[in-house]
Amino acid sequence: MPLRENFLPAFDLDERLARDSLLVAPIGLCQLRLLNDRRWPWLVLVPQRDGISEVFDLTPLDQVMLSFETNLVATALKKVTGATKINIGALGNIVRQLHVHVIARNEGDANWPGPVWGYGTAEPWQTADREKLAAQILENI
Amino acid sequence: MPLRENFLPAFDLDERLARDSLLVAPIGLCQLRLLNDRRWPWLVLVPQRDGISEVFDLTPLDQVMLSFETNLVATALKKVTGATKINIGALGNIVRQLHVHVIARNEGDANWPGPVWGYGTAEPWQTADREKLAAQILENI
Repeated sequence: MPLRENFLPAFDLDERLARDSLLVAPIGLCQLRLLNDRRWPWLVLVPQRDGISEVFDLTPLDQVMLSFETNLVATALKKVTGATKINIGALGNIVRQLHVHVIARNEGDANWPGPVWGYGTAEPWQTADREKLAAQILENI
Repeated sequence: MPLRENFLPAFDLDERLARDSLLVAPIGLCQLRLLNDRRWPWLVLVPQRDGISEVFDLTPLDQVMLSFETNLVATALKKVTGATKINIGALGNIVRQLHVHVIARNEGDANWPGPVWGYGTAEPWQTADREKLAAQILENI
């Protein structure tokens, strides 16, 4: 058998996640992505593991890593945006590949104080604005 | 100064959480509670710490404990209900005391595949039904 080119597990990003969000950076276990919807600063963490839908289906080490990376990103998003509240969620009713949402919420934002999922129609970011936000997040994690 | 009666940190449960949910058991860091809404099997974990709104404001040890207890409860809820998908979320836009939702979702349930928060009107559990569910959860954590 040929040697594998590397020792990373195979990982294929779900097509809908690929379409709806933009890569910020791989940060360890997860790909850090930005949802392409400027109504809210909305990050998504996708563990680079195939075939996992639920957090509890990750290995115990990966569960700890995901928790650590989620909290790191949430802290950075709070600092960069000054948001009133950070919303964190793993739903997956539509896209089954495990992904964790980290969203900056403020009084008066779209659907405040309700949840963001499924609400209205995405408004794509301007390239300069999303690149600035992504850079600020990376500077703070 | 008088000795404290115990070494647990002070903890006061938010009034709305107290009104909308029922205690299942303290399970370590968290109180495990059942939302009094039979439309979905819906558990809530409340870390027994005062003055915390965001997961990342917990100590690092408490963050690990919360992740562990969340995944323990989610695993049990999946096993007991056979749900299609477990939804996990920490929003806190209305109730600021940190609490983590763990909800069993199925195709065709109320607002599937959308989120449950803020949807429609709660339908209280029958006492026997909720006691049975709570007992089954505790047997599996």
